[in-house]
Amino acid sequence: MGRDRTRSGGPGRFIVLDGIDGCGKSTQAEWLVGALRESTGGEVLHLREPGSTEVGEAIRRILLSRELALGPAVEALLFAAARRQMLDEVVAPALEAGGTVVCERFHASTFAYQAVAGGLDEDSVIALLADWAGAPSPDLIVLLDVDVEAAGERRGAAGDRIEDRGRDFQRRVAAGYRRYAERAPNVAVVAGDGPPERVSEAVMCEVQRVL
Amino acid sequence: MGRDRTRSGGPGRFIVLDGIDGCGKSTQAEWLVGALRESTGGEVLHLREPGSTEVGEAIRRILLSRELALGPAVEALLFAAARRQMLDEVVAPALEAGGTVVCERFHASTFAYQAVAGGLDEDSVIALLADWAGAPSPDLIVLLDVDVEAAGERRGAAGDRIEDRGRDFQRRVAAGYRRYAERAPNVAVVAGDGPPERVSEAVMCEVQRVL
Repeated sequence: MGRDRTRSGGPGRFIVLDGIDGCGKSTQAEWLVGALRESTGGEVLHLREPGSTEVGEAIRRILLSRELALGPAVEALLFAAARRQMLDEVVAPALEAGGTVVCERFHASTFAYQAVAGGLDEDSVIALLADWAGAPSPDLIVLLDVDVEAAGERRGAAGDRIEDRGRDFQRRVAAGYRRYAERAPNVAVVAGDGPPERVSEAVMCEVQRVL
Repeated sequence: MGRDRTRSGGPGRFIVLDGIDGCGKSTQAEWLVGALRESTGGEVLHLREPGSTEVGEAIRRILLSRELALGPAVEALLFAAARRQMLDEVVAPALEAGGTVVCERFHASTFAYQAVAGGLDEDSVIALLADWAGAPSPDLIVLLDVDVEAAGERRGAAGDRIEDRGRDFQRRVAAGYRRYAERAPNVAVVAGDGPPERVSEAVMCEVQRVL
């Protein structure tokens, strides 16, 4: 995975953490952001998807509402819309200013949830994301690979419309992330089941390669 | 424009009325729906875009809010999402049950506003709409062609985020509708500047061809 293979464009670095619900993304993202703030001294943004802009938060409320019945195609379009807004409004300016962006969830989530687990055509989803939310693209996508059962317990009972879908759905999502790792560039799969400190070291090791 | 060239699929009929703000779409749609209810005796749905579903109305609030700054790509994705939801939830079941659907605005609006007037690549927008909101497709798209200045006066001062964009933008939109008529199937352009009753006759004449 060459550092300059599909660079984000600006002088900054764009790092994505992704994986199934309960894989430890948020904890790892928080630690990574703290470590990068100390080591780089520059601005480090911590984003989450969908959201991180006013438009994205409004779209997030639609996507996660238990009152609404959305099909996977509508979900994919809404995720793409929120992502494009975040890329234009937040990510691109931050990277151009030389900052570092750490984002929880990105294309891999849409591919895993809406295509592989949701049943949409994989190539159509890849094309939608490339055509409509393709730039800036991440320098590194860290996929946290964890046991689905363990993640289910970590996540507990609290959930939203998408998290509600049960263990079988989560298993298909996990398979979707593995498939994404096979076909997308700049992906590093990190085992996420060990002690969080150990996982964090493995994440940092991958991040160092692109800094 | 053969009646069976790109049929909507079900036994029902899917008719779209489109055109610039203030072209008289709503008046004409209302008359058309009334006339079809009398003549067909079957169910006739009157839809408007974006909206006509709970998800669509939530997306509409984002799209038309003056508080939010959306680029044309995000707009196109949100319109496509609202449309797909409406097609799956309302239009497809109605057509399958043999009903008639009259919808204000559809692909031509996205093409005119976001591509031609908004500056997005025309082919990318056409592909997005075909791939993600392509079925059921209308049996007939009536484009009401009116003078931009006259429409501006008819529309008055009341407006939303998109209507606010001024006369120059509306002129580009009008050009976008004309370009759509050149490249899309099943389009009939109807002069909309005469007395509404006369326009209504011309609309009905086109509709009769596909009933």
